[in-house]
Amino acid sequence: MYAFSKAVNSIHSEDVKKLMKQASGKNLISFAGGMPNNDLFPVEQIDEIYNSLPEDIKKLCFQYGPTSGYPPLVNSLQSYLENKGVAVGDNKILITTGSLQAISIITQEFVNEGDIILTENPCFVGALTVFETAGAEIHSIPIDKDGIDIKALKNKIASLDRKPKFLYVTPNYHNPAGIIYTPERKRELLEVLSGTGIILVEDDAYSDLYFDQAEKHLTRSMKSFGVQDVEIIYTGSFSKILGPGFRLGFMLSSEEIFDKAETVKQALDACTSNFMQIIANEFLTRNKLEPYLKFLRNEYSDRKNLLQKHLKTYMPPEITWNEPKGGFYTWLKLPSHVRSTDIFKESVARGVVFVTGRTFDPASKKDDRLRLSFSNMPKDQIEKGVKILSEAIKHVLQNSKMVIS
Amino acid sequence: MYAFSKAVNSIHSEDVKKLMKQASGKNLISFAGGMPNNDLFPVEQIDEIYNSLPEDIKKLCFQYGPTSGYPPLVNSLQSYLENKGVAVGDNKILITTGSLQAISIITQEFVNEGDIILTENPCFVGALTVFETAGAEIHSIPIDKDGIDIKALKNKIASLDRKPKFLYVTPNYHNPAGIIYTPERKRELLEVLSGTGIILVEDDAYSDLYFDQAEKHLTRSMKSFGVQDVEIIYTGSFSKILGPGFRLGFMLSSEEIFDKAETVKQALDACTSNFMQIIANEFLTRNKLEPYLKFLRNEYSDRKNLLQKHLKTYMPPEITWNEPKGGFYTWLKLPSHVRSTDIFKESVARGVVFVTGRTFDPASKKDDRLRLSFSNMPKDQIEKGVKILSEAIKHVLQNSKMVIS
Repeated sequence: MYAFSKAVNSIHSEDVKKLMKQASGKNLISFAGGMPNNDLFPVEQIDEIYNSLPEDIKKLCFQYGPTSGYPPLVNSLQSYLENKGVAVGDNKILITTGSLQAISIITQEFVNEGDIILTENPCFVGALTVFETAGAEIHSIPIDKDGIDIKALKNKIASLDRKPKFLYVTPNYHNPAGIIYTPERKRELLEVLSGTGIILVEDDAYSDLYFDQAEKHLTRSMKSFGVQDVEIIYTGSFSKILGPGFRLGFMLSSEEIFDKAETVKQALDACTSNFMQIIANEFLTRNKLEPYLKFLRNEYSDRKNLLQKHLKTYMPPEITWNEPKGGFYTWLKLPSHVRSTDIFKESVARGVVFVTGRTFDPASKKDDRLRLSFSNMPKDQIEKGVKILSEAIKHVLQNSKMVIS
Repeated sequence: MYAFSKAVNSIHSEDVKKLMKQASGKNLISFAGGMPNNDLFPVEQIDEIYNSLPEDIKKLCFQYGPTSGYPPLVNSLQSYLENKGVAVGDNKILITTGSLQAISIITQEFVNEGDIILTENPCFVGALTVFETAGAEIHSIPIDKDGIDIKALKNKIASLDRKPKFLYVTPNYHNPAGIIYTPERKRELLEVLSGTGIILVEDDAYSDLYFDQAEKHLTRSMKSFGVQDVEIIYTGSFSKILGPGFRLGFMLSSEEIFDKAETVKQALDACTSNFMQIIANEFLTRNKLEPYLKFLRNEYSDRKNLLQKHLKTYMPPEITWNEPKGGFYTWLKLPSHVRSTDIFKESVARGVVFVTGRTFDPASKKDDRLRLSFSNMPKDQIEKGVKILSEAIKHVLQNSKMVIS
């Protein structure tokens, strides 16, 4: 029962369940959900697509498809990736039910109970749940404002008695930290891995969501750097650029890794929904993605700006944060003597929910941060939410000072 | 790499890949595919549903949902099951991406590499792929026209040095054998398992597809027999009653098994598509399922009758077969001295494809049968297909006789 026995030992999967309940709380202002707001989805575009599908294609929506994916969508994704500058080359695309399934497939393909996986710290909690469920031994490496700590990564690899199966990173508009790796840091990371035989899993769910066209080039994937002696598996998702409800993602890998992944996918769910794949394919081929992305970039940029403005107005001086250049998240830093979890309790009591720092620490300890997601936040609630959160923080800071003095 | 290393040792997953290619062959008449024909899907009903979804529900289609499933669909499924006479009671429903994912989740929850799983022989090949990928030790028990061989099951359990994790069966309109268990056999099966602690996984994908209303009661699930000391996990699917392209299935189990399964599901793909779940829920709540099932029962019954008629006309006397009371499949028996695989080669060369018997044998040996699926066969092709197949069989029989004499 290894998958399950590990799963119940996984604090993170329990955290995810808890968070889902909290985020679904009716009367709470939520900075918790890492998803688009319902009012941002391209409902009209999908209506138009659905209602103009030829009869034979519509029938195909109801049918099984190949395990590797609906062939026209595989082709459209190849063009989409090449337009993004991702080098497809001899690599092959496997379509999955969300990028989380891609991470799950990669883990089932390479990881046995007790094997080592390297992650960033903080790390996307969904991936942590997968790694813990597989019974992996997770070793995490801190990140700074420019990306993963190269020295710490080198030392970690040198200190291990076994070769890690892979390093999992989210270099563009990191969840939860909101940072983007500098090109230099991406290059240094590849140099460290070069020749080690450690696979790089590059999770790139947010790179289309930059706030400044002039910085688009910074999102360039490491898969495109042309480094020959690092095996890179690139994963992407439709959840942030179309809708999580489609459950569509993909992985791009060497043919050898693809072949094994296809076999694992076959045993997980046979194939991904043709219905969802066909609609997503039309969304790409009818050139509806780029205009929609322009709309999203403006919307998220506005929300980010509002959040920054109100944080500056209301937050006490002890609290610091980054200004993200894209994506969904702002990562607040607390003074070392207060815990995010304490602020969470106070904040929820006052009607505002967010995700605690410890949720993203593989060891579930480091708790001096809190994640604010602005993607799912109606603009007119941001100020109220920040005001309540800052009052909760001030309250906890005040009490902690009293405790200290 | 256990998941994968077993997978490449799995003849069945390779068979599935091969079959998919063959079944997709443009110019072949196919008795291979275990899916509905594209012309049978409820396209108009789904159009009507999609275009009458309230705006707020339509937005929900694009969003994440709970890991356990879209709550209104969970409620509708409960009514659907209770109408079928399945006792839901204290059990809980987990919605999955097809019943294959339910089988995969159950396997990840209970099975470690080397653990024993009991199956029927023949057995649904999709399940075999899951069990082999998990590295299970599969022991199979023969079935006859009334269900699993009770004596063989008893002897098998007695002969094992370890307790099997579960017994996997498809009692209603079996894939590939086309049989339905008699109520007596179902009762005997429960008696054998009673008190052994061996879980029963009851896969019930076809029970709505009976050909004779008067025999509906025969499809009653073992989960409804009220046996207290056998743990039963019941799985179902929308693939045969709406469309495989929706990738929707479910499992019904005790709350304890549900809780662990939900954790595994969380680590596999977070949740099932809200889009697909919302449309399926409307299909149920707007009472579109029952009229559609009446239509399907007639269509499949007509195809079954045509297949039986033409088999009687064209097949040589050495070939025998059953007349299914529901479902998709007819299971032809060959004389002991010829192999299904030899007939497959001859038949494909002549333009007709089916699935060989050995595909459904966990040991990939027993090869004296062939599966004909009539569900995906246009009525006007059945006679031509049977004629070509019978000629292929006669040819192989002729040659084998020459070899013997």
